[in-house]
Amino acid sequence: MSEVSAKLRRVDGLNFNVEVAEGRRIQLNSAEDMGHAFTPMELFLVALAGCTAMDVQWILEKQRQKVEGLEITVRGVRREEDPAYYEKIYLEYSVRGQSIRKDAVERAIRLSQEKYCSVTAMIKETVKTHITYTIANGKGNEQKFVYPALSHNVR
Amino acid sequence: MSEVSAKLRRVDGLNFNVEVAEGRRIQLNSAEDMGHAFTPMELFLVALAGCTAMDVQWILEKQRQKVEGLEITVRGVRREEDPAYYEKIYLEYSVRGQSIRKDAVERAIRLSQEKYCSVTAMIKETVKTHITYTIANGKGNEQKFVYPALSHNVR
Repeated sequence: MSEVSAKLRRVDGLNFNVEVAEGRRIQLNSAEDMGHAFTPMELFLVALAGCTAMDVQWILEKQRQKVEGLEITVRGVRREEDPAYYEKIYLEYSVRGQSIRKDAVERAIRLSQEKYCSVTAMIKETVKTHITYTIANGKGNEQKFVYPALSHNVR
Repeated sequence: MSEVSAKLRRVDGLNFNVEVAEGRRIQLNSAEDMGHAFTPMELFLVALAGCTAMDVQWILEKQRQKVEGLEITVRGVRREEDPAYYEKIYLEYSVRGQSIRKDAVERAIRLSQEKYCSVTAMIKETVKTHITYTIANGKGNEQKFVYPALSHNVR
């Protein structure tokens, strides 16, 4: 899958129907009354978080971590001026499972951020990303960390 | 809307449920059998095209162009190596309407690409975008142009 394409057709106002490969459809809008539509900037944020979510899941499995739950919360803060892109993006990974190792999670996030995540790679020069992660063993024991860990990032 | 957020929850494999504001939902996957899901890189491309589609529609209206139809075809070619981001993106705008002026379309695309489109602004340093546009009056008269027009881009 080295090539991806989509076709957008305006319906009315700023409402567009989008068709991706094999007829998968999604609706775009920028109005207040969104219905089932999304704004382009929402989809961008979902793309970014989805990209790193898949990387992290895949890399944790390679490291034989038994992931029972993976959640990502992503939040983007836009500039006031045009172009009103995200000047800051906050990513919070939550990994749940028995005996999940902190170093394995840290490594998965690092490989995603530095090597694999294609969306991250395209915005690296422009957007500042703040990353935290939580590890929970499902028995109420939950710890929160900032990425990168200080040992990898002495300034 | 200076802040946007989303929450992703893994279901199984690389299949994630995503919830954006007010419960709007979308599904992410990276498998062959996509169902109604999208890949992160598909959503990224939709975000990029949607962003500039809305700009162009809005700017054409400001210029009193009577747009009867607006379509955007977007195609992204990924790198072979990791991170496999889009090294080239092809955007093709198709504007249909009576007496649509070429210079108005050119200007709308330029303002979007250089000033307004937030997604474009985030990837400017990384991705090469190739742009063409077609103007049709709906009576079989259709002309295709390359953006930017040479007069604005003498090298």
